[in-house]
Amino acid sequence: MNITVTRRVVFSSGHRLYNPDFSDEKNRAVFGSCSNPNGHGHNYILEVSVNGPVDDDTGMIINLKELKDIINREIFEKVDHKNLNNDVDFMAGLIPTTENFAAAIFRILDDKLGAGRLSKIVLRESENNSVEVNR
Amino acid sequence: MNITVTRRVVFSSGHRLYNPDFSDEKNRAVFGSCSNPNGHGHNYILEVSVNGPVDDDTGMIINLKELKDIINREIFEKVDHKNLNNDVDFMAGLIPTTENFAAAIFRILDDKLGAGRLSKIVLRESENNSVEVNR
Amino acid sequence: MNITVTRRVVFSSGHRLYNPDFSDEKNRAVFGSCSNPNGHGHNYILEVSVNGPVDDDTGMIINLKELKDIINREIFEKVDHKNLNNDVDFMAGLIPTTENFAAAIFRILDDKLGAGRLSKIVLRESENNSVEVNR
Amino acid sequence: MNITVTRRVVFSSGHRLYNPDFSDEKNRAVFGSCSNPNGHGHNYILEVSVNGPVDDDTGMIINLKELKDIINREIFEKVDHKNLNNDVDFMAGLIPTTENFAAAIFRILDDKLGAGRLSKIVLRESENNSVEVNR
Amino acid sequence: MNITVTRRVVFSSGHRLYNPDFSDEKNRAVFGSCSNPNGHGHNYILEVSVNGPVDDDTGMIINLKELKDIINREIFEKVDHKNLNNDVDFMAGLIPTTENFAAAIFRILDDKLGAGRLSKIVLRESENNSVEVNR
Amino acid sequence: MNITVTRRVVFSSGHRLYNPDFSDEKNRAVFGSCSNPNGHGHNYILEVSVNGPVDDDTGMIINLKELKDIINREIFEKVDHKNLNNDVDFMAGLIPTTENFAAAIFRILDDKLGAGRLSKIVLRESENNSVEVNR
Repeated sequence: MNITVTRRVVFSSGHRLYNPDFSDEKNRAVFGSCSNPNGHGHNYILEVSVNGPVDDDTGMIINLKELKDIINREIFEKVDHKNLNNDVDFMAGLIPTTENFAAAIFRILDDKLGAGRLSKIVLRESENNSVEVNR
Repeated sequence: MNITVTRRVVFSSGHRLYNPDFSDEKNRAVFGSCSNPNGHGHNYILEVSVNGPVDDDTGMIINLKELKDIINREIFEKVDHKNLNNDVDFMAGLIPTTENFAAAIFRILDDKLGAGRLSKIVLRESENNSVEVNR
Repeated sequence: MNITVTRRVVFSSGHRLYNPDFSDEKNRAVFGSCSNPNGHGHNYILEVSVNGPVDDDTGMIINLKELKDIINREIFEKVDHKNLNNDVDFMAGLIPTTENFAAAIFRILDDKLGAGRLSKIVLRESENNSVEVNR
Repeated sequence: MNITVTRRVVFSSGHRLYNPDFSDEKNRAVFGSCSNPNGHGHNYILEVSVNGPVDDDTGMIINLKELKDIINREIFEKVDHKNLNNDVDFMAGLIPTTENFAAAIFRILDDKLGAGRLSKIVLRESENNSVEVNR
Repeated sequence: MNITVTRRVVFSSGHRLYNPDFSDEKNRAVFGSCSNPNGHGHNYILEVSVNGPVDDDTGMIINLKELKDIINREIFEKVDHKNLNNDVDFMAGLIPTTENFAAAIFRILDDKLGAGRLSKIVLRESENNSVEVNR
Repeated sequence: MNITVTRRVVFSSGHRLYNPDFSDEKNRAVFGSCSNPNGHGHNYILEVSVNGPVDDDTGMIINLKELKDIINREIFEKVDHKNLNNDVDFMAGLIPTTENFAAAIFRILDDKLGAGRLSKIVLRESENNSVEVNR
């Protein structure tokens, strides 16, 4: 048996999709209304999955309080009610698509959790669009 | 019997809550992280309710295609992937709280639907916060 | 204080929207793809609300087991996995719009519950469309 | 226009439905498996609605931070991860049905909010059962 | 890291489960009320997942507009408000269970997307029943 | 192609997280409010996934009626409206964390379904916490 525990966190951020190397026309063609100059935003849902043996003394893979604290400190506090283009260090120089945003979150949490414990994240940008990152 | 039909529409917008007559400190005290300078955003869910007699020939209070077209033209196209502070005429001069945003949407739809047909709107800013406007 | 208890029930039915007095063109104009000849269907969500005093001995307005039994016998068994145009007596001669379907359900449950106990029903045809019937 | 703002809060509690004045048989007949002796529990969803004028300076009916603080202090901290039969003062002597629990919450929040500002609460015990309390 | 993007689409279809080689009794025994002669229907939720490298210039695995267009043209327009037994070419001769329907959708999208880009689809027939197809 | 069918079941149980070998202080430190002495509870959502070939005659991997019956008999009837610490044989001696509860359910269903047909279960304890067990 392979057991994975998942913690969900919700936050709200602003962003604008555009590539500064593209013309306005190309940005509009590629990103559509997501490239509107004054930006927009989303309620993001982040699901973080940690895999590993269940500790006999606690019945847990990881204490969800510890996992919640890591997610809050490393991700939530840096992105909630922030603008992904301007306010978030770990997104600097990246187009804030859900793919790039999810990959960046995966790298950070993977580093902080260590030992290959992070098995998957899912990042939902809207009820119709989401991205999954796993190993 | 009193019968009401409701149409749901989802859109994404950016906004920043602040009052230009407040000091930065007061904006922070009143609006918290919602006043962060570069803004953020939400996936809004709008539910529009129309009340009235059911037409015998169609079995409808209002054709949902007609209702959808009105909502799209009057609201969705003006707010989706837009910034409520800068891009939306009907929000000019208003702090874009859910209350003010919902009241403005109610006034527009009430005018376009006419004859007191609009009975209620609900505007959900996040899974935890929403506003209802009725008569 | 005014207290209301609500029971949710889910069922799946088929239907086709058309008026036999309309031409094919008019049916298409009014009902769109909902008038496709071979029909389609939905997962309906029905929410039944009963209002009244809370019984001191049970802490209940109505026993939810009793309410569930009434809904199952009077509605669910007659409509679940049935075709609303052909299989459901109480819809005979009615265009099976959500408005007509909800009104018919309200009348039946109001009669069975008696004494004005039924305060409201909501019938959801899809995640975007619903109808509410109240007094 | 009449405007109402709603805040949602989620908590988990344990309870057992039984009336000490009933025989075991009658408790079983009335409450079914809800009267199992060792209790069970639910993830409750509480929606608190506040009605009133929108303040021109803030664009708010009530600051959601203030509303959240009142709900947390008066309700959440007293019921979350608690047993409604044994741990919650304001439920003492009451059968913890959703009706009684919701009515008790309404009374407390109505008193703390004052001035008739509380317009409605909805308490959802499961995806199929809920109770609404309003004036 | 392995990154997957998912697009959700909702549609409504009618169907009837039965095998013409079975007797009525066997159809009823195997398919229950799903074999009722006049059919019923569902709101289906389809989630389409595409896997691959993230393009540096766009920050995307696939442009969601392109993915949406493929899903609409190849699946949505052929099944929405249609009867799966009678109206849908790619379901001809197949019992329209969720398994058969999902497998058929996977084959079509896999062919149109090409190069092994389609990693998974999930097809939800109701809130309780769903099917996943992957490689 | 690899095809998996999933059935969802909802139930409500009570539990208390604590290790009798821990001091009260350590129980509080590890389990927080989940170790409150009188227990609490949750609405659990269980998703059971079965993998295998699709039968040509039925279009099914497994008849969902059969799967539902197995889940009801082996799990639902033993845990719904029960206390996981005191009432459930298969949880005896285990701390009823979501990890331990899910692993126990997986073992039982895997044994009853046989032949490696069970591919995955997901057990959701709340909207924010869940556990997945697979092979």
